[in-house]
Amino acid sequence: MPLSEFALIDRFFRDCGARRGDALVGVGDDAALLRCAPGRELVAAIDTLVEGVHFPAEAPAASLGHRVLAVNLSDLAAMGAEPAWALLALTLPRSEERWLGEFAESLCTLARAHDVQLVGGDTTSGPLSATVQVLGFVEPGTALLRSGGRAGDALFVTGTPGDAAAGLQLMQSRLAVADAQCAAQLRERFLFPTPRVALGRRLRAYASACIDVSDGLLGDADKLARASGCGAELDYAELPVSAALLRACGEARAREFALIGGDDYELCFSVPPARIGALLEALPQAQWGYRRIGALRSVPETVVRRGQTVMDFSHRGFDHFA
Amino acid sequence: MPLSEFALIDRFFRDCGARRGDALVGVGDDAALLRCAPGRELVAAIDTLVEGVHFPAEAPAASLGHRVLAVNLSDLAAMGAEPAWALLALTLPRSEERWLGEFAESLCTLARAHDVQLVGGDTTSGPLSATVQVLGFVEPGTALLRSGGRAGDALFVTGTPGDAAAGLQLMQSRLAVADAQCAAQLRERFLFPTPRVALGRRLRAYASACIDVSDGLLGDADKLARASGCGAELDYAELPVSAALLRACGEARAREFALIGGDDYELCFSVPPARIGALLEALPQAQWGYRRIGALRSVPETVVRRGQTVMDFSHRGFDHFA
Repeated sequence: MPLSEFALIDRFFRDCGARRGDALVGVGDDAALLRCAPGRELVAAIDTLVEGVHFPAEAPAASLGHRVLAVNLSDLAAMGAEPAWALLALTLPRSEERWLGEFAESLCTLARAHDVQLVGGDTTSGPLSATVQVLGFVEPGTALLRSGGRAGDALFVTGTPGDAAAGLQLMQSRLAVADAQCAAQLRERFLFPTPRVALGRRLRAYASACIDVSDGLLGDADKLARASGCGAELDYAELPVSAALLRACGEARAREFALIGGDDYELCFSVPPARIGALLEALPQAQWGYRRIGALRSVPETVVRRGQTVMDFSHRGFDHFA
Repeated sequence: MPLSEFALIDRFFRDCGARRGDALVGVGDDAALLRCAPGRELVAAIDTLVEGVHFPAEAPAASLGHRVLAVNLSDLAAMGAEPAWALLALTLPRSEERWLGEFAESLCTLARAHDVQLVGGDTTSGPLSATVQVLGFVEPGTALLRSGGRAGDALFVTGTPGDAAAGLQLMQSRLAVADAQCAAQLRERFLFPTPRVALGRRLRAYASACIDVSDGLLGDADKLARASGCGAELDYAELPVSAALLRACGEARAREFALIGGDDYELCFSVPPARIGALLEALPQAQWGYRRIGALRSVPETVVRRGQTVMDFSHRGFDHFA
């Protein structure tokens, strides 16, 4: 017999994630009752993952549980915020205990790792999709916005963008990779992205603007540049690509994945020239895993330069309705 | 040509609802940046409406825009909270300007009426569904919980439950009503429910517990009673049924709709005997539209009494996975 809606919530989601003293009433009433951190600003993000759109039907439940929270934590990371609470709206074709157990365990593990408590939600029947809303805090006036960049600021990105998009194409059989270990690594990067929350917090002291890379680095760098009233120039040779991605598909394709792939959940951020030294000293690149890839410029448009050539990338990022 | 995801957000959702000074950054960055009301507790609710589950495919876009916010405002009303901000996650098969225009206008109108600003969201492609998350505030220690009731407290309900369920059955051709005006009235109650926010705020001074009636009055009264460590007895003759519902389907069916219908978004609340006089004086029943329907009792279980008979209602409320 399938679990009822209420038994399901009780069993899998009542004590999910961290236990926080500032969650006065969590799962189980009409709404959650929370105590805002005094003297701090509240940060709120919402993101949905839909089967067949954001993940293939064969993606494991554990991946969906992880990703739906991770993509929201990534939004908070891009603001420099500290996450606190999450709400989950889960739509399921059927209530399957095993699937739910794996989904919830994965979500709750990531929540605990970030001291996030699941404080509310809604469970309904329908085509598989999950929406999470994350709430967090930031010290007044210190939030990282997309709009704070200036022409001349250096542009950085964390991690190795493109891996996740290649991993997804592998799962969809749109990409074939002989090396099984490479393939597994790339798939893992799609299935279990790492939100850069700790780095986002620290970047508040150095970055002028920040965005999380979810629709492709080129498009998202362009969004940051536009919001800052600038353009941007990315250096093709400086794009960080993983050894696995290079081995999987060669340099040209790897760099294309890095630019327009999507699903990375890395941070792209700008730093004024005067603060670059302090950034590199306080947050060593090798330890924090980020790289300088270009700069904001006064000329509008975001371009990729390879030596003296400006390259053409007509597809600038993922658009759900393009 | 369909609107792109970003043009769509810009056009329909950037300036949606009230303009609030405490929304420091709204739609358009990675997350919203908000200023919590000092010295108040934060209240957060999330609810999803899925096509074919919560509304029929032929429901107008304006209804979905209204309902997805209304059902969340109803959760805040049940807590006695004052709503402030909303986030919207909208999943659409296609981007259709006309549909989106009607959806957004309806959502934004209801948002403005409650001084709510849409501060963020996510728009994706996929099977039609909408999730809203609403945030609001309540004075510390005054939130209405489900758990505050005691045996002997009187039980009340607002409005005329059952209308919405009958309206839905009309739309699904599961109920036939000769009187066109009646039918229109019932459909309207399903399509455009009224969240009882103003009453919920005032009930903080009188009610011991409160729940919003979304899954059927009998089942939701039972949830309130259980959370309060009680049972409840509802008086069949006292159930408020609308003239339209009576005319549409006769008394027995009307009272059954009132008990187990669902989709009402009314408030069910308990009041200690000592405070009933003050409640009735401060909030006249004729003006505020609520009615005494029974009482909490120490005996577990929630029953419906008709004269000396305890009636059998095996179906106690809507369960997505029953």
